[in-house]
Amino acid sequence: MGPTAILLLSCPDQKGIVAEIASFIYQYDGNIVHSDQHTDFETNTFFMRIEWELTGFRISREKIAQAFSFIADKFQMQWRLVFSDEVPRVAIMVSKFDHCLYDLLLKWQSKEIRMEIPLIVSNHEDLRPVAEYYKIPYFCFPVTPETKKSVEEKEIALFQEYKVDTVVLARYMQVLSSEFIAVYPHRIINIHHSFLPAFVGAKPYHQAYARGVKLIGATSHYVTEELDNGPIIVQDVINVSHRDSLSDMINKGKEVEKRVLSRAVKLHVENKVLVFHNKTVVFD
Amino acid sequence: MGPTAILLLSCPDQKGIVAEIASFIYQYDGNIVHSDQHTDFETNTFFMRIEWELTGFRISREKIAQAFSFIADKFQMQWRLVFSDEVPRVAIMVSKFDHCLYDLLLKWQSKEIRMEIPLIVSNHEDLRPVAEYYKIPYFCFPVTPETKKSVEEKEIALFQEYKVDTVVLARYMQVLSSEFIAVYPHRIINIHHSFLPAFVGAKPYHQAYARGVKLIGATSHYVTEELDNGPIIVQDVINVSHRDSLSDMINKGKEVEKRVLSRAVKLHVENKVLVFHNKTVVFD
Amino acid sequence: MGPTAILLLSCPDQKGIVAEIASFIYQYDGNIVHSDQHTDFETNTFFMRIEWELTGFRISREKIAQAFSFIADKFQMQWRLVFSDEVPRVAIMVSKFDHCLYDLLLKWQSKEIRMEIPLIVSNHEDLRPVAEYYKIPYFCFPVTPETKKSVEEKEIALFQEYKVDTVVLARYMQVLSSEFIAVYPHRIINIHHSFLPAFVGAKPYHQAYARGVKLIGATSHYVTEELDNGPIIVQDVINVSHRDSLSDMINKGKEVEKRVLSRAVKLHVENKVLVFHNKTVVFD
Amino acid sequence: MGPTAILLLSCPDQKGIVAEIASFIYQYDGNIVHSDQHTDFETNTFFMRIEWELTGFRISREKIAQAFSFIADKFQMQWRLVFSDEVPRVAIMVSKFDHCLYDLLLKWQSKEIRMEIPLIVSNHEDLRPVAEYYKIPYFCFPVTPETKKSVEEKEIALFQEYKVDTVVLARYMQVLSSEFIAVYPHRIINIHHSFLPAFVGAKPYHQAYARGVKLIGATSHYVTEELDNGPIIVQDVINVSHRDSLSDMINKGKEVEKRVLSRAVKLHVENKVLVFHNKTVVFD
Repeated sequence: MGPTAILLLSCPDQKGIVAEIASFIYQYDGNIVHSDQHTDFETNTFFMRIEWELTGFRISREKIAQAFSFIADKFQMQWRLVFSDEVPRVAIMVSKFDHCLYDLLLKWQSKEIRMEIPLIVSNHEDLRPVAEYYKIPYFCFPVTPETKKSVEEKEIALFQEYKVDTVVLARYMQVLSSEFIAVYPHRIINIHHSFLPAFVGAKPYHQAYARGVKLIGATSHYVTEELDNGPIIVQDVINVSHRDSLSDMINKGKEVEKRVLSRAVKLHVENKVLVFHNKTVVFD
Repeated sequence: MGPTAILLLSCPDQKGIVAEIASFIYQYDGNIVHSDQHTDFETNTFFMRIEWELTGFRISREKIAQAFSFIADKFQMQWRLVFSDEVPRVAIMVSKFDHCLYDLLLKWQSKEIRMEIPLIVSNHEDLRPVAEYYKIPYFCFPVTPETKKSVEEKEIALFQEYKVDTVVLARYMQVLSSEFIAVYPHRIINIHHSFLPAFVGAKPYHQAYARGVKLIGATSHYVTEELDNGPIIVQDVINVSHRDSLSDMINKGKEVEKRVLSRAVKLHVENKVLVFHNKTVVFD
Repeated sequence: MGPTAILLLSCPDQKGIVAEIASFIYQYDGNIVHSDQHTDFETNTFFMRIEWELTGFRISREKIAQAFSFIADKFQMQWRLVFSDEVPRVAIMVSKFDHCLYDLLLKWQSKEIRMEIPLIVSNHEDLRPVAEYYKIPYFCFPVTPETKKSVEEKEIALFQEYKVDTVVLARYMQVLSSEFIAVYPHRIINIHHSFLPAFVGAKPYHQAYARGVKLIGATSHYVTEELDNGPIIVQDVINVSHRDSLSDMINKGKEVEKRVLSRAVKLHVENKVLVFHNKTVVFD
Repeated sequence: MGPTAILLLSCPDQKGIVAEIASFIYQYDGNIVHSDQHTDFETNTFFMRIEWELTGFRISREKIAQAFSFIADKFQMQWRLVFSDEVPRVAIMVSKFDHCLYDLLLKWQSKEIRMEIPLIVSNHEDLRPVAEYYKIPYFCFPVTPETKKSVEEKEIALFQEYKVDTVVLARYMQVLSSEFIAVYPHRIINIHHSFLPAFVGAKPYHQAYARGVKLIGATSHYVTEELDNGPIIVQDVINVSHRDSLSDMINKGKEVEKRVLSRAVKLHVENKVLVFHNKTVVFD
């Protein structure tokens, strides 16, 4: 299959939306390869992800947005248009844990997740060898309360230099400032090592161990100003029992963390996630 | 929400299908409430389930099929049109196990599964009191190799008298003949107590126990001529270990069986299952 | 297998505990059929559940406790001795939801859970017909803030009259007072319809829906003074997505609730649960 | 915690086994840290895994086996004695897929799986760079029907030179000969990419895709003469739907394969698996 155009949109629900969009694509000889839609009846909102082949489509990719804007305006859509061959550029931020980083790198290398990883940023030197093995530039900025502001400014400058459009916090153990988050709204993906909203904040496995839960989990979500409270993309859990020590829980949890984060990143870079009212619509 | 029309279709994939269908609905003022589609690229087949409100639709329900047949013919569709307020009439066949029967009855009673259960048929008397409690006619036909043919004829006659359109085998321990199956093509739902295709045939838990598997399962599928080989609708599993005796496995399995069968019946009566080449497309 | 003695104990860990207990049983010709142990290294505590056949054991069941108390004292054990043929008497408390009640009744009827259900108590009349079908006495006490204290007193009196040793809250929608709880310490089992500690308190599905979680769950726990904070026995979850309305979540959740509660009750009546520091050791 | 002795045993069940073993340990001042047992009532067989600290134990590790053999003989035990600080030496065999290899290497590196990996053997050159990054000797022996016998002889010689005691087939795409298997009875661990016994043999994902199953799985088992029929150690599954292409299934399956194999290897090297009658008793 050749490159495709992908349209993601939401708008107040009303009659005729699908007809208009599908007719637009058909009229210019587009071949739809995927389409998924959803209506939220509570808020009367319509959501759609529709993908069609560019080959044979009679509008050049540069002009599709302009051509579509007429329909978008008519239905008051929030929308974005992306192309499957424009591979997202994803910066990975890490601290000392390597399991999520490795899982992302392996899936990037095997093309299971189609993204570019122009750089890895850390507040520690520990994972530099991993980056070097994969020949990815690695930048280390130690963070202290005093340096935090200036470090973040350097990081943002770097991300802009490297044309980063998504930031993945692969167990990055620093809280980002509101200013940082504002630069990448709904484009910073975090992995929290609990089934949120249980065990917000620091040391969730310790909290889980102390509470005596029978399952532990992980949550991947977009970062927003309120800590661990952004729109959830993926969650999963695994069983634990009294036989699991805290360290067993941490090891079991790492398995869940890495698959939850990789899954969320894959969905995001494939443009399958729409954010709406602090929730996500995930077209998987 | 008022009653809806539901169109299920498959056809060779080509440009313009969605545009044509959506325009048809829009043109007569239909409001789409759900739509789901799928393309099988291997066989180049397009599948769709689309649902719109009848209220305000400018074609009366009697005439929709005729109006749509023009589009259906154009795209060589296999299709059916149903209405959400035409509640399916489901006959349940049982032997002695009651767990699947109860689960169906409870979900029917709570309206979680929207169906009518005009009758229950069994080859044993054991579950008559259950049927009586729920005030559902219960017919008992003991089956022997000699009587099988005549019993099946009586059952089919009964189903026709009761206007049954779907038959659910809720652990009915008799194999239906090809003749019986032919009367309800892809409308007889069975629950097999293994994760098919493992452990086809009799006593799957005994087979699973003997093999020493670490998970046991259940499979709900449409009944076809080849035993336990029809299109799979739902499957699920549960963990077992060396600590589970055969009887523990059977008990654990019952939990899986009942939720797998109820889930399949719910999907079926909500017209969310399309059969294609001995597989199912399940729009859930 | 004939009746068995079951010893549940915890004590400070030290050398020789297993040797002493096993020798005690062997010395009187006991045949061990199950044994499970656990050491909590954080608190240096030893836990054990050991079960042996009474047939052939050379101490009569009336005198085992006395004979064992010498060992128990030596190791400062907290312990209890039960016999497998002394079937627990379980009172079920319900409000209007029937799914957990039915699941318990069906597993009681099929002997999957070996207990007696001498009575069902409710604050509503709704489920009386269910109790009547199963021929179980049903008592209805409407609860208001004014009557709560006197109702609880009546209920406790009733439970004592019926020799109840365990109370199961099968979606009973009233909070029990500290006085009530004190009568049945770690013998009142509740089902909470969330994966605790997420969504404590009222309307957890509404909270889950509002938060946009991707899995919902249920937690069975012993009731203690602090609401929804008692020792967790069993937890499980099920996936949800943006496609699930609040009502879909509630229906999916009911499936999880009933299997989590039934599982917890089964473990409890089989004397497989030990409580320790607001956690449970579950010998399953 | 210091080093421990681990005793794994099975024998015909009879009275006094636990008493004798526990007394043996206690008599020489051993401190039991873990103990797990199981009785198979069908065959009347007793299984045990018991672990105690060597520090303070009044028999030197060299003499424990001799001292215990008296008890072992008395009860006709099959048994083995291992020490926790004798780290197993595991050879990994691979072909071209790297996902299972990486998962094992990462868990080896993080000490989540305590083993040594003295060498990696392959029939292809592809994964040599991975081995080099981890500084593990890599041997490549292309296999053809003609060379198979001589290659296996070289491999066995190599394994003996490197003092290998366990062989892990991490998606090694060659069938081992009976002669090879006989050298490592129940010490060769394979990952098969289906939930056995479904989809034995080649291309299980293709088989699963063709059958239209709703879940796919992976099975880790000891290799025996009969293909894909050895004792199962770990199994797991993941949901799939009509939306999953064959290639999606393969990717989803890789996730399951790697965690199932790593889990099995971890259980094996921690001496938690006993084989009995083509099944396993897994003390996890």
